[in-house]
Amino acid sequence: MDATCPDHFIALAERLADCAGDLLRRHFRATVTATSKADRTPVSEVDWMVEQEMRAILRAQRPEDGVIGEEFDPHQPDAPYVWVIDPLDGTKAFLTGRPLFGCLVALLNEGRPILGVIDQPIVRDRWIGAAGRPTTHNARPIRTRACAALGDAVIGATAPEMFDGATETNFRRLAARCRFAVYGGDCIAYGLLASGFQDLIVESGLQLYDFAALVPVVVGAGGRMTDWRGNPLDHNSDGRVIAAGDPRRHADAIAALRS
Amino acid sequence: MDATCPDHFIALAERLADCAGDLLRRHFRATVTATSKADRTPVSEVDWMVEQEMRAILRAQRPEDGVIGEEFDPHQPDAPYVWVIDPLDGTKAFLTGRPLFGCLVALLNEGRPILGVIDQPIVRDRWIGAAGRPTTHNARPIRTRACAALGDAVIGATAPEMFDGATETNFRRLAARCRFAVYGGDCIAYGLLASGFQDLIVESGLQLYDFAALVPVVVGAGGRMTDWRGNPLDHNSDGRVIAAGDPRRHADAIAALRS
Repeated sequence: MDATCPDHFIALAERLADCAGDLLRRHFRATVTATSKADRTPVSEVDWMVEQEMRAILRAQRPEDGVIGEEFDPHQPDAPYVWVIDPLDGTKAFLTGRPLFGCLVALLNEGRPILGVIDQPIVRDRWIGAAGRPTTHNARPIRTRACAALGDAVIGATAPEMFDGATETNFRRLAARCRFAVYGGDCIAYGLLASGFQDLIVESGLQLYDFAALVPVVVGAGGRMTDWRGNPLDHNSDGRVIAAGDPRRHADAIAALRS
Repeated sequence: MDATCPDHFIALAERLADCAGDLLRRHFRATVTATSKADRTPVSEVDWMVEQEMRAILRAQRPEDGVIGEEFDPHQPDAPYVWVIDPLDGTKAFLTGRPLFGCLVALLNEGRPILGVIDQPIVRDRWIGAAGRPTTHNARPIRTRACAALGDAVIGATAPEMFDGATETNFRRLAARCRFAVYGGDCIAYGLLASGFQDLIVESGLQLYDFAALVPVVVGAGGRMTDWRGNPLDHNSDGRVIAAGDPRRHADAIAALRS
């Protein structure tokens, strides 16, 4: 993230998050129709409605750009600028009335994320990570916290089911060496890590639209976020991610997950 | 829960929750000193501060009653009326900046819970269950939802670490038969179950101050809450609890956990 992300991209990403937030607030804890996808995860009419609204804004404002979203087919994914959106990250939390879901907006330039927004519309938490700028939470710059040793680290994951047998064993062994583990949270956990309330997140099964917005938020606050081998996350990643507030603990987590 | 809980007890419980909420809001996402208890769970200066304030109110208003709280020694635990308080249920969530912790207030009459309050001061969710009255959420009566079959049920637990080896296997086998599982939430999950957003909660390792307030909330909304053998929860319980929004699914869960 060398070149600075232009203001107009940030303004458009905020407009997308505002639009999603209005719809998500209106349908939170209301009667929502949901079905199960092939992988048994739920998807609701709200996921579709929000993504359609966000795509309509992008079509009108940036017709030359690509769009990759969770619920519909990619549009011009080889364009120089591609917006990666997840209208409702944490559908399970949303459907069970927990304010720990979020709308995610990312912008890729030639495949590299230059902007990420994590927005929680009930508590009204908005994290923005943008190339060349410090990450902000509700417009104030934030930093991850230092973590002197793995035994001091608070680690998290959304659910044990996201791991398969061997990776769950590795995760649980790592978690047992940390101070304590906290579950649930989806994208919001990465914002809280950027704000210095959590030290490590280790997850599996994430798609490009899940992690593209998270990377600029974590990195712009001083953290590190890669796959489990330490490689940068991109559209070829295997879905296993590590985020660390203190880069020294990132190395510890990689070593622990490998052994 | 036969006799109706008098208004003045509800008013006092609300006053205790108001007092706790003011302090919890003030310290949420602020710098808080926390240490680890013998069981490796965290406790913070906020837990102590809130419980002291709540005890001071009870001492002034109801000197004849007993008090059992999480952080300090029991006071007159054999009195006819005993207040059971957990100033901050979900300390891990509080310390990591997640608005899924709560203050719990229960009142026991001759050992039986006649009143329970679950209060979330950030989102401002307050559930009140009281003998002879329907459970309310923010002053509006609520009901659990019907759940036609275990395969339709949304199940939850705060963390897999709360189970030991054999009970975790039983929990995970039950969860695999449900629609999906959601983690995190502590006391708030029981309020959301009472409001009809979740169908089952299965947990382990709970103490009297964790579950005393939850039982009247769940039962007063039409649900069932017992230990894993189907027995009522009291101070002799082994800490394993099941809450079900639809009583038919409570029986399913007991059968599944036994096998």
